[in-house]
Amino acid sequence: MAFVIIREAKEGDCGNILRLIRELAEYEKLSDQVKISEEALRADGFGETPFYHCLVAEVLSAPGEPQGPCVVGYGLYYFSYSTWKGRNIYLEDIYVKPEYRGQGIGSKIIKKVAEVALDKGCSQLRLAVLDWNKRAMDLYKALGAQDLTEAEGWHCFRFEEEAMRELAGK
Amino acid sequence: MAFVIIREAKEGDCGNILRLIRELAEYEKLSDQVKISEEALRADGFGETPFYHCLVAEVLSAPGEPQGPCVVGYGLYYFSYSTWKGRNIYLEDIYVKPEYRGQGIGSKIIKKVAEVALDKGCSQLRLAVLDWNKRAMDLYKALGAQDLTEAEGWHCFRFEEEAMRELAGK
Repeated sequence: MAFVIIREAKEGDCGNILRLIRELAEYEKLSDQVKISEEALRADGFGETPFYHCLVAEVLSAPGEPQGPCVVGYGLYYFSYSTWKGRNIYLEDIYVKPEYRGQGIGSKIIKKVAEVALDKGCSQLRLAVLDWNKRAMDLYKALGAQDLTEAEGWHCFRFEEEAMRELAGK
Repeated sequence: MAFVIIREAKEGDCGNILRLIRELAEYEKLSDQVKISEEALRADGFGETPFYHCLVAEVLSAPGEPQGPCVVGYGLYYFSYSTWKGRNIYLEDIYVKPEYRGQGIGSKIIKKVAEVALDKGCSQLRLAVLDWNKRAMDLYKALGAQDLTEAEGWHCFRFEEEAMRELAGK
């Protein structure tokens, strides 16, 4: 039987991570918004001052099985800041390939992110979820997260590059 | 007449920033959640690897006026990451004291953050707003932002420290 490990991503994983980023965006029905390249992922995550950190879920094949290890999920996060509580972590993406769901891999990724957060002195772990993705919402709630949009009325806002250029007069 | 400048915060501004953080939390009716100290703000924003950056709006007094310069607003942000677009900026807090509203100070802070974002190669500026804060929502929309909770159904989720400790078994 296959065995799953959660490990820190290496630069050589960026091709696999990009494939999973695209799969997640397709699942979210927002794949037209993906503009990132493998080159940018390499530069932004593995330079001197990384803009993000990433964990991958890797399935190790059993002895005698023909295929090598295979990346089947990822969790991409960065350090952020709360003016109420100080340092925290934002889990930008979490994804497990459909054929590997129901085995607790998503929970393992979140647990590992929580460990990193505590080790780094963070007091919150934040993420955003689409309201129709009940499966994900139920999982996060079961693991102890609170839906702040529901509980307190927080809305996510975003300025895109064009709006920023207009604002900055550039 | 008083004149307002938007400038980068210095370590010596942390006391004023903390007072404004508390005022904002009171305005948001969530002041029981503020646990941060001036010491933490100093350490986290002005060390070797800052966890956040901050702009302040300062009112300069006219010649002959008795009081010195006075910090009346702030915008606190950090660099974050989108797996769709790459580097971006998250505006964690933006606040202007009630008696200085209606003079375009909030817009000036957002414009300055947009300039920083573009200079640093960021393609998005994100923030979160409470749904009853119509004045803020209307301002951000007028400046070109999109409400993603409304448009796409994004909900903000958060694990607090206790939930993380339970998850990580620590």
